[in-house]
Amino acid sequence: MAKISGNAVVGQSGGPTAAINATLAGVISGCLSAGFEKIYGMRNGIEGLLNEDFIDLKNYFSSPDCKELTSLSHTPAAALGSCRKKLKDDEMAAKMYEIFEKYDISYFFYIGGNDSMDAVAKLSDYAQRNPDLRKMHFIGVPKTIDNDLVLTDHTPGFGSAAKYIAASMQEMVKDCAVYKTRAVTIVEIMGRDAGWLTASAGLANAVGGSGPDLIYLPETAFSEDDFIDSLNNLFENGEKPYIVVAVSEGIRDKNGNYVAEAAMSGQVDSFGHKYLSGTGKYLENLVRDRIGCKVRSVEINILQRCAGHLLSKTDIDESLKVGKGAVDIALSGESGKMAAYERKTICGKYSCNIVAMDVKLIANEIKKVPAEFINENGNGITDACVEYLKPLVLGECEIEYKDGLPYHFSF
Amino acid sequence: MAKISGNAVVGQSGGPTAAINATLAGVISGCLSAGFEKIYGMRNGIEGLLNEDFIDLKNYFSSPDCKELTSLSHTPAAALGSCRKKLKDDEMAAKMYEIFEKYDISYFFYIGGNDSMDAVAKLSDYAQRNPDLRKMHFIGVPKTIDNDLVLTDHTPGFGSAAKYIAASMQEMVKDCAVYKTRAVTIVEIMGRDAGWLTASAGLANAVGGSGPDLIYLPETAFSEDDFIDSLNNLFENGEKPYIVVAVSEGIRDKNGNYVAEAAMSGQVDSFGHKYLSGTGKYLENLVRDRIGCKVRSVEINILQRCAGHLLSKTDIDESLKVGKGAVDIALSGESGKMAAYERKTICGKYSCNIVAMDVKLIANEIKKVPAEFINENGNGITDACVEYLKPLVLGECEIEYKDGLPYHFSF
Repeated sequence: MAKISGNAVVGQSGGPTAAINATLAGVISGCLSAGFEKIYGMRNGIEGLLNEDFIDLKNYFSSPDCKELTSLSHTPAAALGSCRKKLKDDEMAAKMYEIFEKYDISYFFYIGGNDSMDAVAKLSDYAQRNPDLRKMHFIGVPKTIDNDLVLTDHTPGFGSAAKYIAASMQEMVKDCAVYKTRAVTIVEIMGRDAGWLTASAGLANAVGGSGPDLIYLPETAFSEDDFIDSLNNLFENGEKPYIVVAVSEGIRDKNGNYVAEAAMSGQVDSFGHKYLSGTGKYLENLVRDRIGCKVRSVEINILQRCAGHLLSKTDIDESLKVGKGAVDIALSGESGKMAAYERKTICGKYSCNIVAMDVKLIANEIKKVPAEFINENGNGITDACVEYLKPLVLGECEIEYKDGLPYHFSF
Repeated sequence: MAKISGNAVVGQSGGPTAAINATLAGVISGCLSAGFEKIYGMRNGIEGLLNEDFIDLKNYFSSPDCKELTSLSHTPAAALGSCRKKLKDDEMAAKMYEIFEKYDISYFFYIGGNDSMDAVAKLSDYAQRNPDLRKMHFIGVPKTIDNDLVLTDHTPGFGSAAKYIAASMQEMVKDCAVYKTRAVTIVEIMGRDAGWLTASAGLANAVGGSGPDLIYLPETAFSEDDFIDSLNNLFENGEKPYIVVAVSEGIRDKNGNYVAEAAMSGQVDSFGHKYLSGTGKYLENLVRDRIGCKVRSVEINILQRCAGHLLSKTDIDESLKVGKGAVDIALSGESGKMAAYERKTICGKYSCNIVAMDVKLIANEIKKVPAEFINENGNGITDACVEYLKPLVLGECEIEYKDGLPYHFSF
């Protein structure tokens, strides 16, 4: 193995997922295999980098396949901590370069979503404009339950969230089925701009289980009248007294206004995203007013992004692989790249390779659910969508339990 | 084996749980072992009985340990359907006796909570007042995630709900821990009158994991001022920027009024229970007003009672056992009894026997969390509570998966 020049640093950013620690485990494993002298972990992303708040990861993980890395990969949320800090300007980048010099860091791995890729893009842009600075390798590693990053077939963390949502929906449908009274249950699922998670609620129907009757994504204009018509139609012509609806938090009307606009606080988060709440509750009140039957709404809330007790093995295996792949990409001399998933389906058999994509083309883009994945009425998913989703939720991880509860790694 | 006189009927009632089908599997298994000629399942509890809407259970289950019974025992919610119908008067009981005659039924098993035990109590009372009627064996089998039935150490379904809540809390605490900003997360857990489920949220802390910082049960008078003081104290003197609170939906102030009284609709269900909603949301607004930090509320909602993907093996094994035990109690000649759990702890080793208890002493009573299980400040649980809860969540079931999702039995 060629001698590596400099040390590595890795950080996590953005919202927690059930798989972001598996990706961290992959990066650490890759770095241990590569023989880095020092592998630093930034505490709370670039906030920790700027404060020189580092963990010496070799103190925790002795070999590329030690059992602590397996524990880490089954632990939800960001073990190193996260931040919402944006890389704002050249001044901040210059400050980071001082720290890279001080700690002899040449390899920078940042695991996160859209905004994290923006940070990697800005750092590599800064490097290009300042060719006299030390040679750095800035590599982004994807993470988001939302599955809305472009140039990657899917994102680490999505498969586990999708599995949890599909399994929980199936259970809730069973729960709703016990009574003979007319009732509507509305389940609100995360997704501001892209409906991937809500689409996955439909998986149970497609594989012979029981899923929701209606599915509404942000990609289709939502009509309150059509919604009420669909419910009435199901009550009159369907065979069941209960109806279950899966709905994205971010559904909008034909003018692009959030359906629950009135219920929203109007606050924005530090990235300028509108804070959403109350779509399920809004529709619950609508059904009560317009139909008058028993109705309730359920918000799966943060459980859908941190349910480490129900992981997709495919997702966790791939999340480890993309972490290791990111190290390989860096060692091949690249910078300003994101390690991405490329799907191969040969004779119906799914596989997934790691490829390097230009991070500039990824940051600030959103991959929406394509039209061919949504049914004609805009209230369900198609077979093509099921074919896309199905391999991503396959397999279960062997979770370690202690005293009846999942055992979690922590620093 | 002595020849059994007459057939058996079994039904499910009340809210769904993750273990009520395991109890049904136990009753069916026991009846198959006993050699009943016919084993009827009532569809939707006594509603189905009165409508003669029966399933011939021997068509689905061939032997006392067939694999379909295992599938049934891992399927959440009531597979036979449930109802909220009350046994109102002698007229209804007389109608039932006509049906018992018609179908030659002498053994009646009813799986449910408080209200179902009331039905069994009324039927056996009716039998006592009408000694010339056919000889019947009315046996109640407990079921409730709330753990609030008296004369039984705990209830089937509670252990799995407690495990799900403790595991989900642990995951949510991990989720909350990723940022460095001050934040309060309030998790609302089911429990109108008894705080058993909310208490179980504290299990993770006790076994070396991460659980909530504050726990509020309906058994202790809730003070808004004390709550805000506790939060401020934790922010000032604690080591973490985030605080996680577990709260029962039914917490009340010192005058016995629900804390979220104003937020409630005032509607009552068909048993006259007050419908509760919004305790978490109410406290969220209180914290926003009085402290002004980032705050959110999460309602675990129906997921806590139907999460068949995360079962306590102890709970499922015992739920099967209590179903079989109910058949044994009936065959011994008893009527008007509930099959109950009796805990034995010998040299620190937990075990659980099935005993017969008078159903009249159980119906309409509520078992609350005792004072010695709640800490002095009324905002946490004691070691004695942990010792009580711990054995009930132990062990994991091997769930069958199909296409990445749990496989569920259905009729």
